[in-house]
Amino acid sequence: MTYLDHAATTPMLPEAIAAMTEALSTVGNASALHSSGRRARRMVEEARETIAEALGARPSEVIFTGGGTESDNLAIKGIYWARRGEQEQRRRILCGAAEHHAVLDTVEWLEAHSDAEVTLLDVDSQGRVQPDVLRAAIAEAPETVALATVMWANNEVGTINPIAELAAVCAEFDIPFHTDAVQAVGAAPVDFAASGVAALTLTGHKLGGPFGVGALLLGRDVPCAPLLHGGGQERNVRSGTLDVPAIVGFAAAVRISVGGRAEYAKRVEELRDGLVEAVRREVPDAVLNGGEGQRLPSHAHFTFPGCAGDSLLMLLDAKGIECSTGSACTAGVAQPSHVLLAMGADPAAARGSLRFSLGHTSTAADVEAVAAEIGGVVMRARQAGLAGMRKQTQKQEV
Amino acid sequence: MTYLDHAATTPMLPEAIAAMTEALSTVGNASALHSSGRRARRMVEEARETIAEALGARPSEVIFTGGGTESDNLAIKGIYWARRGEQEQRRRILCGAAEHHAVLDTVEWLEAHSDAEVTLLDVDSQGRVQPDVLRAAIAEAPETVALATVMWANNEVGTINPIAELAAVCAEFDIPFHTDAVQAVGAAPVDFAASGVAALTLTGHKLGGPFGVGALLLGRDVPCAPLLHGGGQERNVRSGTLDVPAIVGFAAAVRISVGGRAEYAKRVEELRDGLVEAVRREVPDAVLNGGEGQRLPSHAHFTFPGCAGDSLLMLLDAKGIECSTGSACTAGVAQPSHVLLAMGADPAAARGSLRFSLGHTSTAADVEAVAAEIGGVVMRARQAGLAGMRKQTQKQEV
Repeated sequence: MTYLDHAATTPMLPEAIAAMTEALSTVGNASALHSSGRRARRMVEEARETIAEALGARPSEVIFTGGGTESDNLAIKGIYWARRGEQEQRRRILCGAAEHHAVLDTVEWLEAHSDAEVTLLDVDSQGRVQPDVLRAAIAEAPETVALATVMWANNEVGTINPIAELAAVCAEFDIPFHTDAVQAVGAAPVDFAASGVAALTLTGHKLGGPFGVGALLLGRDVPCAPLLHGGGQERNVRSGTLDVPAIVGFAAAVRISVGGRAEYAKRVEELRDGLVEAVRREVPDAVLNGGEGQRLPSHAHFTFPGCAGDSLLMLLDAKGIECSTGSACTAGVAQPSHVLLAMGADPAAARGSLRFSLGHTSTAADVEAVAAEIGGVVMRARQAGLAGMRKQTQKQEV
Repeated sequence: MTYLDHAATTPMLPEAIAAMTEALSTVGNASALHSSGRRARRMVEEARETIAEALGARPSEVIFTGGGTESDNLAIKGIYWARRGEQEQRRRILCGAAEHHAVLDTVEWLEAHSDAEVTLLDVDSQGRVQPDVLRAAIAEAPETVALATVMWANNEVGTINPIAELAAVCAEFDIPFHTDAVQAVGAAPVDFAASGVAALTLTGHKLGGPFGVGALLLGRDVPCAPLLHGGGQERNVRSGTLDVPAIVGFAAAVRISVGGRAEYAKRVEELRDGLVEAVRREVPDAVLNGGEGQRLPSHAHFTFPGCAGDSLLMLLDAKGIECSTGSACTAGVAQPSHVLLAMGADPAAARGSLRFSLGHTSTAADVEAVAAEIGGVVMRARQAGLAGMRKQTQKQEV
């Protein structure tokens, strides 16, 4: 099987499985005061230190959550509510137009239900938010901005945003800047302190750790209201019993993926470039999306003119090649990707897109498999598309 | 080691560990369309069916979450916001006075930040909300009630509430009734449909499953706004990548713990009654809390006059006996339990309380260990308490 959907989820690293599996057999609520509880607490705090060290944060800046979606929701709703609470006029949220749905749907909900005013920041043809776009949006009325949020790297096309520059613009106006870095950690250099961001989302299952666990890196002085109320386990910003085994597995994966990032990136980028070359050779009119400027080593996102992305995906799946039409989280819904539309793509063309994303288990054989099949698959998808169009025309004629 | 803190968290069942561990090595985002994604989706849907069948619910009524705290927050905030959205005057939340902090802190936040009006429902001396108390609270102004929430069984003292009767009162007025059943599932008979509740919280790590996963059983016609926005994976009520291995382990634990409940309850209740007898024999003035009426088979909650609960806990821990002063989620904070206060206890006495909670790994040896140590430990805690009081008095005299 050729698995090229690592951006949706990547297999757990053996070390993360081992660490987590061992912890599954222990007992102890990390909030309990007895020996088992204190041992569980130590495991959590060691994991917190590991993650902080790997990402240039202080341990107290690591808030464990249930994953990337929760971290995004917590950062955006929490900072919005806290800043609104401090100053009533801070209603505006500035948000990249190509963000993940966990960000976009959150800001839309705040607009519909919590009196926020959302400004979508235009992206360029590569999917990047340029600092002057952010600056112009702030300049309209700096005193009304609650927060800004722009992803570190785009999940569909792999483009890397100029995060430090964006954070610096926000810093001039004392505006907290959040970034969803779930695709970036372990794949691009990420340093929390050096980047100047106020809050950063990461998640386990995108970097070789388990599902169901993530973190929000949150600066000590950044106001943030809780999203989940209860025992107040995580700095009173996040409640819920700490998931000790998942946290331990997560920390192992962060340590290894961040520690081995440079080598990983070099290896995977070479494979990815080989895949791009092979696709272009087999399908000369394929369009590579987000191919310019800084980008993740793992992503190769194409538009195949005259094809339906879902047909391509299913035909490749039948050949044992697994990939995606875009974000897995909204796959199944036949809509053109909002990312491609924001980058200026034609809606019809955007429907014919595929994302190949490589990861730590990828090999040259995976690239060869795509090279061997993509030409035939695209041809069949085009024939199916034409047949569908003819049927449509005949129906209309009848 | 004598582990008597199963109500805080209980060891995973071997079958749950096996099911989860096997799933940790598979790959696939359950929202992806390719073969690995569809296989992951099947695992999730089979787990959903297993849980639904064990608890008298329909599969479509099972919403997977990150645990009990999230389920409680989702049910209460979600139903409150949805009902408010439908009818502006529905501001009131009726809430048991002895609820877990995941419920109490949630309703307090809604009161402080989202215009709710909270009525705490008095509990009787055993910690129960009586149906006439709920009826009286509704009767003040039935058309202004958004929802009511009362736990199935109390986490500290183990008292079981008359849930079906409470739900029936709410049903008369078309008021959605939520219950936090994290302590009850697997320990008491729980049937979602038969109980008549609108929403029910359960969580993995209280019944032999993993941390970091839970469910909200939510009736199809119950309005509920999402708490986490994004991919909309769970009926558009809950977003976040599905945690396939944890869900699989959770379902195994629900199946086994619910299937073997009657036998488990009989065995554990006998052990628990033996423990109560031993404590009373060794410490004749110990007061058993919540000992009357229907209660969980696992809990034995005592007040030891003249002792500090924390001292007792630490002295027992030194003897290899692990227990709790109350809810682990707020342990570490030296406050008298709000549960005991709601039951009418004296604040000073409430501080001298301990919860022993048994579970699937408990044995007669655990009971014997407590019987052998509790007398000496209580004596030492009393001496320490007296010494502390003398010191206090001397200080005041100086």
